[in-house]
Amino acid sequence: MTESGYTIAPIGIIRSELASPEAAPRQGYEGAPEAWLELTAPVAQGLVGITVGDELIVITWLHRARRDVLQVHPRGSLEAPLTGVFATRSPDRPNPVGLHRVSVLEVAGQRLRVASMEAIDGTPVVDIKPFIPAVDRREGVRVPEWVDRL
Amino acid sequence: MTESGYTIAPIGIIRSELASPEAAPRQGYEGAPEAWLELTAPVAQGLVGITVGDELIVITWLHRARRDVLQVHPRGSLEAPLTGVFATRSPDRPNPVGLHRVSVLEVAGQRLRVASMEAIDGTPVVDIKPFIPAVDRREGVRVPEWVDRL
Repeated sequence: MTESGYTIAPIGIIRSELASPEAAPRQGYEGAPEAWLELTAPVAQGLVGITVGDELIVITWLHRARRDVLQVHPRGSLEAPLTGVFATRSPDRPNPVGLHRVSVLEVAGQRLRVASMEAIDGTPVVDIKPFIPAVDRREGVRVPEWVDRL
Repeated sequence: MTESGYTIAPIGIIRSELASPEAAPRQGYEGAPEAWLELTAPVAQGLVGITVGDELIVITWLHRARRDVLQVHPRGSLEAPLTGVFATRSPDRPNPVGLHRVSVLEVAGQRLRVASMEAIDGTPVVDIKPFIPAVDRREGVRVPEWVDRL
């Protein structure tokens, strides 16, 4: 490695009724509530073009996650085999980046109201990208056995 | 914001025949070559459970991107309206995180050979996650008008 690290400067923050990781569903489609994404003023013009109904990929920094965990039982189930974190969606991982699929419900200046967001209140936002089916979707993929229990 | 920044410690690096951004396709499905993901030794056990045929989301740090760009013409086309970077997949953005959908072709110790990877040689790897349809896929989404030209 020629670089020892890069600094993420959050572009905003999640405002949600979810106060703790224990209260949060594991994924957005598992009953996650609405949330506000509050962007910082310096990056607000980066939102131009986002409108109600858009599907976005929100990238967060899961600031409450553990960065020293390399293997987990997927979804906390001891019945699932101990698995490398890069083969799971565990929040605990060396760089705890979260990926969230959300729909835009409202655009209010530098704030976006979205559904469904499983990240907790105060989670830093790293990036926002449009969901584009040709890029992000693929049919007929093989999935790990433990995913059937999702 | 209560935090001014977070440090990403790369978990590995991309080894690819693509030497420069000019040589790289815009997305993996647009003719991107195979590449190797070389993980660092300290995180190698995080790969346990990844096997040939798996679909992964690789998260990179696009170290050659510009972080001071907030609006672009999507896909470099002046015919497309000037658009906020958060409404596009431009590599230029405040936190230049790249998302890449790849298939695993070979697992060799702490290295993975994957197809198709549009990131250039030397790109730092931030995270690896399994692609899970229930989480990452959604049907019938609305997409920006300029996406039709993808």
